[in-house]
Amino acid sequence: MRFPQTSRRQFLLAGTTTLLTGAQSSGQADKYLRSIPARTVPAPTTVSPLLREKIAEPIEQNMKQTRSLVLDTPEQWRQMIDSLNRYMDENMVAKIGAQFPAKVAPMALGGVKCFVLTPSTYRPSNRRRALVHLHGGAYVIGAGKSGFSETLLMAHYTATRVIFVDYGMPPNHPFPAAVDDSVAVWRALVRKWKPSNVGIGGSSAGGGLTLAVARKIRQLGLPLPGASFVGTPWADLAAMGDTIHTNEWIDGSVMTHEGFLDAAARLYAGREPLTNPLVSPLYGDFKGFPPTILVSGTRDILLSDTVRVHRKLRQAGVEASLNVIEGLSHDQYNDLYTSPESRDVWTEVARFFDAHLGT
Amino acid sequence: MRFPQTSRRQFLLAGTTTLLTGAQSSGQADKYLRSIPARTVPAPTTVSPLLREKIAEPIEQNMKQTRSLVLDTPEQWRQMIDSLNRYMDENMVAKIGAQFPAKVAPMALGGVKCFVLTPSTYRPSNRRRALVHLHGGAYVIGAGKSGFSETLLMAHYTATRVIFVDYGMPPNHPFPAAVDDSVAVWRALVRKWKPSNVGIGGSSAGGGLTLAVARKIRQLGLPLPGASFVGTPWADLAAMGDTIHTNEWIDGSVMTHEGFLDAAARLYAGREPLTNPLVSPLYGDFKGFPPTILVSGTRDILLSDTVRVHRKLRQAGVEASLNVIEGLSHDQYNDLYTSPESRDVWTEVARFFDAHLGT
Repeated sequence: MRFPQTSRRQFLLAGTTTLLTGAQSSGQADKYLRSIPARTVPAPTTVSPLLREKIAEPIEQNMKQTRSLVLDTPEQWRQMIDSLNRYMDENMVAKIGAQFPAKVAPMALGGVKCFVLTPSTYRPSNRRRALVHLHGGAYVIGAGKSGFSETLLMAHYTATRVIFVDYGMPPNHPFPAAVDDSVAVWRALVRKWKPSNVGIGGSSAGGGLTLAVARKIRQLGLPLPGASFVGTPWADLAAMGDTIHTNEWIDGSVMTHEGFLDAAARLYAGREPLTNPLVSPLYGDFKGFPPTILVSGTRDILLSDTVRVHRKLRQAGVEASLNVIEGLSHDQYNDLYTSPESRDVWTEVARFFDAHLGT
Repeated sequence: MRFPQTSRRQFLLAGTTTLLTGAQSSGQADKYLRSIPARTVPAPTTVSPLLREKIAEPIEQNMKQTRSLVLDTPEQWRQMIDSLNRYMDENMVAKIGAQFPAKVAPMALGGVKCFVLTPSTYRPSNRRRALVHLHGGAYVIGAGKSGFSETLLMAHYTATRVIFVDYGMPPNHPFPAAVDDSVAVWRALVRKWKPSNVGIGGSSAGGGLTLAVARKIRQLGLPLPGASFVGTPWADLAAMGDTIHTNEWIDGSVMTHEGFLDAAARLYAGREPLTNPLVSPLYGDFKGFPPTILVSGTRDILLSDTVRVHRKLRQAGVEASLNVIEGLSHDQYNDLYTSPESRDVWTEVARFFDAHLGT
């Protein structure tokens, strides 16, 4: 499966002209494409020194590689997934675990493999509370402990036990495996736990999945979580959001939706359209969702996904707290886990759960 | 006073190298400037048709004019201010007034010229409430009824009486006139009104001024407003925010900080440094501020100012609600007053005041 670089732009144009006869340069179509000249953008001084250094790193090489990825066969996917998971495991998770330690215990819930992480900061007053963590990784990476980076931070800052859900992923288990596995865990959990004492959340694909799971739980008539955390959610896999384009070359983390994310979206959705509301939560309604805290950054290509979800939640009358961090690219509050920006985000998330979960 | 196009970038660099001996292209300095290639950015389909058309409008001509403005003498300023005020008055205010009508009564408060606007939507249940509106216009335009655009929208959506403060502005009345006049109005108001029943707010310069006035009120030991509205605040006149650069060419409203805004900042500050916390509220602390609702857009060059204020409020323990609108440029919820985006913003602001002001 290949996505030429102009595919989404052509799609956007096709949606706006009644008859686009393959003529890319028709005056009608061009009207909706604005040309931006080449320019220089400084790394701001309004962020932490650590983030500023990160912003100053060149991205041309990564951008080129990400866009030109060839992922046509399950075997190509598996090779890339293995190497990315190994990288995450050996670098991120090992280092975060050293700084934010937690005891890890495997556990099956609703027939789904899970891990329970108890942080060294655990407070006994939180013993009747738990958090469910849905990891990120574009619905392809982050299996097993390679997905623990955010789980460790979440457990540390909330001083609460966190249940990591090792949900099924493609190429073997495309949609709806991730949703079904997470819902099975929830169903098993709420047999023993008071639902209003349990929170749920994650970032990127984990943020989108959190919303899909809330929708599915509601559809099934299961009790809802007491609160949810939706970090820079991949909530529109059709990638229609404005900042996918405006923050291209600005986001230093995922950089672009072209290449890897476009391919991962198609692999995950399988035969389903990308606009299925359980694949891309932005295409459904948000009535009755739990109180939700959202996080993004000014450089995040998924800032649009985040703010679109926030508006839809608010318009549906749901309590929702939006937090956008100066200079931060996609999911960098997890990558730069020693930065004041990361501490700020996780302190805010912990405060939100503390204010909304029952005891 | 002239600002060459590279001035702020040079300033940013100067702050990061111990010795910048005029060599713009030293390797050390270049490290903090990222080159972004020329590219095309589509007008998104995730916004209202009205906003999409607006985003699709070419901006090259306006950008060029704004950057190359020559405003060296008070006379040049007065000419431009007059022509902009006349434009606002004849176009925006007349049209908004037709759609969102209000009765207007002049009134002096604390020796400052004000206008009280009573909207056709006025609800008697709001009779013990009032809002103070601090208009925008870069601290130079928006005098008298030419500044009514936002006042009319605020009055309409909140169904409350709004007091427009016709604060002094340069070239005749630079800082601290705007702050002092607004504080004088507040001091007079709270002799008759219960402070917790009165809200205060505005956008752009009016958003920055709202924060400066809250700080000054607190310094003077006067009672604080019940809530405040801070729309896309010009809260850092030194223009250090990240989106000043990342959203240059993306923001279709003010487009750039260079030229007009840089010159207006210097004119307003007069002999004060731009980092005086009453000139640029971001350089002060936010402890004890009233509950605040903030609004910006993903294309806003002042998105950074907005989110930086939001973080500082939250870190100071202040209740603060951030709202960022997909695809919106600086202050466009007022310019595009017939758009669903405008309605969404003003409905949210009205709800916030309603929830926080006493009755």
